[in-house]
Order: sequence, then structure tokens, then C-alpha cells
Amino acid sequence: MSELKLTFPDGAVKNFAEGTKPLEVAESISKSLAKKSVSAKLNGDYVGMNDSIQASGDFQLITTGDDEALSLLRHSASHLLAQALKRIPKFSGMHFGVGPFIDNGFYYDTDNGAGNQVSVEDFPEIEAMMHKIVKEDLPIVSRQITREEALEMFASDPYKVELITDLPVDEKITIAIQGDHIELDKGGLVPSTRWVKNFKLTSVAGAYWRGKSSNPMMQRIYGIAEWKQADVEAEVQRREEAKERDHRTIGRDLDLFFTSQEVGSGLPVWLPNGATIRRQVERYITDKELANGYQHVYTPVLSNLNLYKTSGHWDHYREDMFPPMDMGDGEFLELRPMNCPSHIMVFKHKPRSYRELPIRIAELGMMHRYEKSGALTGLSRVREMTLNDGHTFVEPEKLEEEFKSILTMMMEVYRDFNITDYRFRLSYRDPKNTEKYFDDDDMWEKSQAQLKRAMDDLELNYYEAEGEAAFYGPKLDVQTKTALGGEETMSTIQLDFLLPERFDLTYIGADGQDNHRPVMLHRGIVGTMERFTAYLIEMYKGAFPTWLSPLQVQIIPVNLGAHGDYANLVKEQLQAAGLRVNLEKKDAKMGYLIREAQTNKIPYTLVIGDSEVNDQTVTVRKYGEEITQTISLAGFQNEILADVANYSRKN
Amino acid sequence: MSELKLTFPDGAVKNFAEGTKPLEVAESISKSLAKKSVSAKLNGDYVGMNDSIQASGDFQLITTGDDEALSLLRHSASHLLAQALKRIPKFSGMHFGVGPFIDNGFYYDTDNGAGNQVSVEDFPEIEAMMHKIVKEDLPIVSRQITREEALEMFASDPYKVELITDLPVDEKITIAIQGDHIELDKGGLVPSTRWVKNFKLTSVAGAYWRGKSSNPMMQRIYGIAEWKQADVEAEVQRREEAKERDHRTIGRDLDLFFTSQEVGSGLPVWLPNGATIRRQVERYITDKELANGYQHVYTPVLSNLNLYKTSGHWDHYREDMFPPMDMGDGEFLELRPMNCPSHIMVFKHKPRSYRELPIRIAELGMMHRYEKSGALTGLSRVREMTLNDGHTFVEPEKLEEEFKSILTMMMEVYRDFNITDYRFRLSYRDPKNTEKYFDDDDMWEKSQAQLKRAMDDLELNYYEAEGEAAFYGPKLDVQTKTALGGEETMSTIQLDFLLPERFDLTYIGADGQDNHRPVMLHRGIVGTMERFTAYLIEMYKGAFPTWLSPLQVQIIPVNLGAHGDYANLVKEQLQAAGLRVNLEKKDAKMGYLIREAQTNKIPYTLVIGDSEVNDQTVTVRKYGEEITQTISLAGFQNEILADVANYSRKN
Repeated sequence: MSELKLTFPDGAVKNFAEGTKPLEVAESISKSLAKKSVSAKLNGDYVGMNDSIQASGDFQLITTGDDEALSLLRHSASHLLAQALKRIPKFSGMHFGVGPFIDNGFYYDTDNGAGNQVSVEDFPEIEAMMHKIVKEDLPIVSRQITREEALEMFASDPYKVELITDLPVDEKITIAIQGDHIELDKGGLVPSTRWVKNFKLTSVAGAYWRGKSSNPMMQRIYGIAEWKQADVEAEVQRREEAKERDHRTIGRDLDLFFTSQEVGSGLPVWLPNGATIRRQVERYITDKELANGYQHVYTPVLSNLNLYKTSGHWDHYREDMFPPMDMGDGEFLELRPMNCPSHIMVFKHKPRSYRELPIRIAELGMMHRYEKSGALTGLSRVREMTLNDGHTFVEPEKLEEEFKSILTMMMEVYRDFNITDYRFRLSYRDPKNTEKYFDDDDMWEKSQAQLKRAMDDLELNYYEAEGEAAFYGPKLDVQTKTALGGEETMSTIQLDFLLPERFDLTYIGADGQDNHRPVMLHRGIVGTMERFTAYLIEMYKGAFPTWLSPLQVQIIPVNLGAHGDYANLVKEQLQAAGLRVNLEKKDAKMGYLIREAQTNKIPYTLVIGDSEVNDQTVTVRKYGEEITQTISLAGFQNEILADVANYSRKN
Repeated sequence: MSELKLTFPDGAVKNFAEGTKPLEVAESISKSLAKKSVSAKLNGDYVGMNDSIQASGDFQLITTGDDEALSLLRHSASHLLAQALKRIPKFSGMHFGVGPFIDNGFYYDTDNGAGNQVSVEDFPEIEAMMHKIVKEDLPIVSRQITREEALEMFASDPYKVELITDLPVDEKITIAIQGDHIELDKGGLVPSTRWVKNFKLTSVAGAYWRGKSSNPMMQRIYGIAEWKQADVEAEVQRREEAKERDHRTIGRDLDLFFTSQEVGSGLPVWLPNGATIRRQVERYITDKELANGYQHVYTPVLSNLNLYKTSGHWDHYREDMFPPMDMGDGEFLELRPMNCPSHIMVFKHKPRSYRELPIRIAELGMMHRYEKSGALTGLSRVREMTLNDGHTFVEPEKLEEEFKSILTMMMEVYRDFNITDYRFRLSYRDPKNTEKYFDDDDMWEKSQAQLKRAMDDLELNYYEAEGEAAFYGPKLDVQTKTALGGEETMSTIQLDFLLPERFDLTYIGADGQDNHRPVMLHRGIVGTMERFTAYLIEMYKGAFPTWLSPLQVQIIPVNLGAHGDYANLVKEQLQAAGLRVNLEKKDAKMGYLIREAQTNKIPYTLVIGDSEVNDQTVTVRKYGEEITQTISLAGFQNEILADVANYSRKN
């Protein structure tokens, strides 16, 4: 009997008898290690804890502490699900597709033909059966079999047969066995069913076999599996909250926007409520930029295709662009993929002097992206979008100053929208591969130093990412935490040395020569109206601060006949002050109407009855608060106007 | 010798000897008629006053009072021009193309090869020679010649030879003779050169022979000719004013916008100054509509092509639409030609009740029109435009009320923009061809009556145009006088019975049934941003009222060192009050800077010197006024804010 020579991750080499199992290896090191070891890898391939190690090589135990271990748990949970389904008589005859782990869980594709379909009502029964199998503590072991054995073993399951048939004829076929259940599986599983004790089935959806619409539709059963029950519960809650916060759900509930095939994929329609929010954002950011020395322009959504040939978009970005349109006369027009070439045209339309610099061009620039229909989602992934775009043209030696000015404005905007959870990433070129970038070492070194100095001067925390710069220059990204825990780039400032070259941009310097090359900065503060609104919806869960709220005041007269006149006067006075007000005329119970105002997340509800009419007051109830307050109409008007002017900040 | 039987327009028939000339016919009627008769027509063909009438038939004298006569005068003026050019030695050897009359004048295409070119500096000499020929009082007579004679006669002029050669071989060739000058011409001329005494040459431009770019480039000499010298002068002045008012000229001078082939034909770029005006207009009209119960939306510029198949645009309007774009998955997206289908989608996205009606949907809706490149002009004829669009959905019996509400708002808007010169046209279906229109007699009769009643109730003057309605419903157009004397449709309210049918729009009536069909009204108040801005530019000659002006206040310190601090304080205070202010920092003479502010048509110029700094005042000079006034800064701020709030109205 030959010896196995196993090399451990720390470099240690130990000898074991051939056929030794990973569990035995672990036990030979320590009891506690054996207890928390989920699986093992030999030369990168999984070896189950109960399987024999067949050869010498690099050996590694995977423990519950490793991130990877969770995938093995979830993978095993899917097998547990299939095993349970097979044991439940009402699903007998069910066929099985594949059962992988996914981010945060697992699924199994099943097909019960004309038989009983799986519904969420069945989940308790299925979960009970899974728990039963967990208790049985069935060891999970792997085995290699021949193609013929495999075809015989899975003869009753056409999907498995298809999978086997599609394998190369010389491919080794591995199965995983847990008691009465056999899976076609390469491994990467926990040692026994006992390990999968914390799980929950979550949903069932339709899915085409292998994702092809010409294949049969199967039932995909989703579940969560975690090491700890608390984590399962946290995940369930996170998902509920995610659903509750999902901008598509809130968008529908609050009538903010809709998407439909009839209008076109990826082309959301902003309903009056959503449009009001967008209009506030647009006016806010435009006014902010104007106050900061930006010159707003309107440039066309279509341009001559040649513009994007000059800019390089046509060469490098074509697959995200819409097809060009032939206008005759040899002219092809193109829906613009980005606004930079348009703003360059504005810079270029007359000679520029260093005295004018920095020139800051801004626009709510609509652009189009040729996204595949499968990738489209609500407002967050669309084919037509309007970007809060800006380009500044600056003398190279004044980069730091301009960068600071943008950052300062950005921080003010974040404060007004109450965006507090974000981090800065400063991206440099890769110092080991400088030849991969725009060729001007001096420009790179100086500008990167200027960016860093600006961040330090403004005392902003940031991290540096070497090799993350674009080809054309270094950049700063602001990564915001989304309400659902993800991260996305909200704002960006990108230096561009390339486009000024390509378009031969120049300005007249102090020396009177018209051959000075400006640096161009691409910058976006709130990004596209679409994505930013999706972000705000999720951040505020639809309860918008007063200044953004589609409807700011809901007036409910106790009795429309008796209090309608005064209620209307209140409405007109507040509207004249520029507020968005509605007078409720529905004939319904007071309690119902107040609840409805809360459901619609209206910041202020005013109730008007006899005493309000007599005293010329209003009884105010703020969204989310139980208490009410009766104050003079003038007093309320001052309060809400201050709330709007202050962007609803508490401090 | 046989007799001529001439039938006059009043039906009278008179006999004349064969070979009688129109002049003799006129003289036989009255001396004064003979004096004012310019030419004659026999059976619709011109017969010169000095030519023999060759046959019997319908006979008509054309007198100076007839509109047509002016064309004959201008036609003759072009011959006069050619004759004069031939007599001037420096242009000897010149070849001649064609010399027609045009709207408001005439031209002649000439080609002097490598010889002296005609320039405006030559005009006095040419005009003097023309006046000399006028004094010669050369009679103009026609003669028919053979093709061979013609080719011989014009042998030295290759363009004429080409024209002759291109005629059908059996075509009669007519020439017009005035003294030493012969024209290849079918007639329609005055009796002698004496008649063409009031004229003026205006410009010279390049033009390809017969308009083909493969042909030689000729010089086209333009002129004006009128019966009275005062009319010539008025036309010269009108043209100067037109040039001065042309929105393209002002647009360039004031840096409002530009167009370029590089960006794309028909796709104007709005520069910061022009964009400021547009932004004011957009915010103004949006706020106005919101205050009038409109719900503003944003709907996509692209839609599924099927939408325009349902609406009928694809069938009836296709040649004005951009080519559809294939998105894969069987989806074709189309740049929208109009916004109505989008707003219908907003109406349709949920069930509607009569309680909600009228539903008023509005948008600054961008749309695209596939115009031929030759038709494109500045901001007034473009391929991409943003329309102040609105659609209201209303119960048929409430049309009158809704129509009034739109009209009332329209009149308010006109007042704010100081639009005073317009007339209303109410267009009905043709009562004799009712089958050509949407088939619902009752709807037509009732709605036309409602529109008429509304106009009468509001005491608006209007004229009625039977047969001018659209297929889908009656309409009201507001025809405004343009600064250049033309007329264009600024606003429109169009009833539409058809689209609600095509999209099967319904609402739930008071009876609880969801089968009631709303009427749709298309309405535009200020039209597209592009055309409206062009209109405003021409109306105001670039001197915009304060509320619209790109820059509202120009501050000129007498000495930047001594007065700069206070000047800056003034700037900041006014900016904080929401005004658009610039502090002039150029080192130049006061007089020059003040003139420049006037040239740039800035409403207020503030001059700041010692006494202003000491007294905390400003010295104000309004645009177009010579006097200045020194007032407190607070006083000035109040004045200009009132000016803005009042839309710069005098009353």
C-alpha cells in the first residue's frame, strides 16, 4: 500500500495511508478541526469528508469559517430539498433538473408534468420532510460510475439523462449519495444531512430548462440556507425589507412611474407623482450648478455619427449604441451614448481664452444605451436616461482648484439630500503598466498628486486604487451604500487627457498663443434622473422629505359641507405660497382618510373641523407621527415653508 | 380682312380688326384705362400691349391695380438689368442664364467667365445705366421666330443655346425686343422700359446654372422693383429690418445658439444665453400649467413602433418619421413623431372615473421629424424639437368648459409674453362633405357649437373656416403675426374623436359603467421651444424683457481697484435675490463698456464709482434709455424684482 503525501496550505507536508478520508486527516490534527471541517480540496478539486483521498498533492480543509463553506452548505440544501420532494407522495413522478447554490441561497428546478405543482402552501410540508432527513443524519459520499451505469441509474429522469448525454464521452461521472437519494454531482458538499439544519424555502417561480425559451417550463424552488438560524431569519427579514423598499414596488404603490411592453422595454413613463420628484431634483441641481458658475446648455439627443467616430465611442463603445439612422445626403444621425462630445462642441464653437477658464458646461443630458431587454429593471436599468452631466475645461495647473470646487458642491448636494453613507475611491493608473494608459507621464503624475492633495486638504477620507483609472485619466468615484446594502457609484469626477487631443481643443494662454491644451473633467453629481430617483425611493422608502414629496399637504375637512369653504381657502393660500396641496373631497370616514394619507406618505395632513374654522387654525399631523397639533394657518405656512427651504433637515 | 371677336371679363363681346394691339383696344375704351394697362391676356396667354392680337377669344387687360401686374414689372426689370449689363464695357462678353420675377423682386443669372465679376460696388453704375434705358422709353415688343433663327440670334450665349436646344422641336419660340436688347421670352412684360423706373439692385450671390451642383456657378443679381419709389424704399427698409431681426443673425450676435454640420443638420445647440431663455420659458409654462390643474409627466422619446401603428401615425405620417431601430426580441423602437400616444398611455395605465375628468396631461415633450436637410433653418425648422404639449381627456358634454379653461390660460400666457398681434381661426368640417370626416354627426354638431359658444362667451373675435377641420375633429388655431409680417400658428386646440377610439379609451361614468368614451383635446400654448424662441428673438429684436434676458444686470465699476469690492457686494446681493448678474472686469474705457452693454441688450447697467461706494447706491441705466438714475441698492433691487415678477409689463 503506497503512501499519500499531502502538502498543507502552510507548506507543511504529511504522509497518510492511501484511501485516507479528509475526516481522518482532520481528526489527526485536532478534534475541533474535524468538527468544523465541511469539505476538502485536493489540487483544487473537492473531496468529500467521507471520501477517500486518491492521490498526493496540495491539500486543504474547508471549515465553517471559510466563505466558500457557505456555498457547500447551500449546494447540499438543494439536494436535501430534492430528497424531501421525492419522499412526498403527492410529488411522486417529479423530474429534476439542476440544483445549484446561488448568492444568498439555492434553488432546484423541478418538473411534475401534469401532476401536483409545488406552491408556497406546500413549503411547510416540504420543510418538515427536509428536517426529518436532517435528523436522519445521512452521510454524504461520492462515487465515480460509468456512463452506462449513470444512464441506467437516472433512466427515469429525462433531464438528468440529457445532462449525462451532453457530457464528453471520456468525462468521469460522479454521483453524490445521501441515503436513499442520489445526485449527479461533482462534489462540494457537506459531510452529512445533519449539517443542513438551518434553512427556509422562500419562493417558487417558472424557469425554462437550461434557460432556453424553446425548452419546457419548470418550477424553480428557491430557498435560504445558513449556518445559524438567526442568519436565516435575518436574511428573510432583509428580503422582506428589500421587497418593501424596492423602487418598483413603491413606484407602483405611489403611482410614481410604470414600464410596459406597449410603450417599449426599458423606457419608463414618469407619472405625475414621479415627475414631480424628478422636476424638483432637476431644478435643484440646475440652480445649484448655475450658482456654482456652471453654464447650462441644451444639446441635441441626436448627432452626426462622425462625432462619435472622432470621440472614439464608435470604435470602443459601439455595442452599447443604437443603430445609426440614414438621413440621406450622406448624413447618419446617432442617438448619443454620452454627452461629452456635445459639450466639446460648445467649448469649440468659438476661440477660448485662459481668462474664461475654467469653462463649466452642464446639462440635463438625455442619452441612450442599447441594453439587452433581459437586463432592464424599473428605473435603475433603462435604455433612455437623463444624466446630470457636466464637463469643465481647465488649465492643467488649475486642476486641484477645480477638483476642490466640484467636491465642495458635491458635499453640499449630499447634505441636502441627506446622503450620509458613502466612501471615496481615488483611482490611479497602474504604476507597473504605465504604457497601458494615455501617454503623458508628467500629466499623470502631476494630476494624481493634485487630486490627492485636494482630498487631503478637504480632510475627506478616501482609499486609493492603483490600476483602476480609465485609459484617459485618473478619477474619483463616490460609492454610496444603497438601501438594500449594495454599493453603487453615485458621483464621479474623471480627468480626461484624451478627448481634448482627439478634438484638438485649445485655448489662448497668457502668452497670447492659441495652442494650449485644456484638461477636461467629466463630472456627475447625482447621476441619471432615473437611477437617482430609484435610489431616493429606496432610501426614503417612499416617504419623501417635504421638499421632494409629490403631494406636500393633504387637507381633510371633517364635513365637506360645513368646513369646505375654509378648507378651500387654506388650500388656495398654501398653493399660492408654492406648495403642492390637495383637498380631500371623498365621502369617507375621517379615520380611513387619515390612514390613507399615511399610506400615501404625505408629509402633512391637515384636519379641519368646527374649531379650526372658528379660530382660523389647522390641526396638523405629520407623516409617521401619532400626535397632532393645532396652530394658526399662518404659523403652519411658516413651518412648512421653512421645512421645504431647509430640505427637511432636522438640524 | 377678318374680324376679331373679343370677350371681356364682364361678358361683353366686341369686334376689332385683325392685328389690333391691346393698347388700341384699351384706348378704344378709355384714355385712362390705356394709361394704366400693363399687358393683356388672350385665352390666358399674355399679349404685350404693343403686339398684335392674333385670334378671337377671352380677352383681359391687366392694369397696375392688379396684383399680377407687379410680376410683369419685375420680370421686365430683370430684362432691363441684362440690357444695362450688356451696355457696360467692363462686363462685355458676359453670358446670361434666366431672369425671372420672384416674390418681392427679381434676379438675373449671369456668368462673366474669367472677366470682371459683378459686386455690390458696381450696383450704382449698373443702376445708372438702367435709368438711362428707362429714359430711352424703349417699347417692348414680342416676335415669333424659328428654332434656327433663335440658335443663330443667341449663338454667342451658350446658356440660351442650351435652353433653346432643350425645347421640344415643335415648340414656338418667342423673343422680346427692347431696343438693342433681345430676350428669349414668352411674354408677360410691361409696354416699354419707361415703366420700370422704380427699382433697386440689392445683392449678388452664387447660384448653379439650373440649380444643379454639377453645372457652372453663375452670379445671381437680385433686385427690387415696385410701381412707386416709396414702395422700393419700404421694401429696402423691411429687408434691412428683417435681416436685423432674423433670429439666426441675433442668435449668433448674442451667442444664443448655433447649428453646424459637425453636430448634425437641423440639430441646434443651445448656448448658455439661449438656454437661459429656454429655461425661463420652460419653467414659466410648466408652473402655469401646474397652477391650472395640469399634471406634468416625462414620457420617453422612443417608443415601441406598434404604438404608432395603433395611433395611425405609421400609416399616415411615415415619411416624416425617423427609421425604426431593431432592438432584437422582435421589438422595434421609434423616435416619436408626436407625444399624443405617450399621453394616452398615461391615461390608460389605470381605470379612470368621471370624477377625475378632465384629466390634463402635459409635458415638455421632445419629438423628432425627418425633415429634408434643404428645409432646415436655424431654430424655426429643425429635426429635434421640444413641444409645450398637453392633452386633456374630457366628458363630451363638458367640452365647452374645458375649451374655455384652455383659452383663458392661453390669453394669460399671451399677456405675459406681450403677444398682442394674433387672430383666432375656428375650423369646422366641410358641411357639404361630411363623409370625409370622422363618422359621428352628432359629435361634430354639438362640439362645433360648444366651441363657437365658448368663443362668443369669452367675447373673442374669430373667423370661421368651414372645411379646415382635421379628419378627427374641429379645432381652433391662433395665428400670430410674426415680426417680419408673416403669419404662423402659435397655439392650437384640436378636438380628437378618433384616437380615443383607436386606443379604446374609456372611463367609468356616473352610471358605474366603464364604457364611456372621453374626447381628447390636443393643445399647445407656446408651441415648440425652438420655434417660440425664434419668434421671441425676432419679436424683441434680441432685447429681451428682464425676466427672460440671459443676463439681467451688468455692473461696471469705474475703477476695479477702488470700486471692485462694493461692486462685488452688489453682485452677490443681487445674485442671492435670484438675478442673473455679471461684474465687468475688463480693463476698458467706461464709454466703451457702456456701449457694449447696450450692444448686448442687457436690461440694466449699473455704474459704480466713488459716490456710489460712499452712499451705497448704484447708478442705473436701462437698456435703450439715455438717462441714468442714482438710487439705493435696496431701491434698485426692489425695482428689478418687480420688473421680473411683472413680466416687464409697462401697465
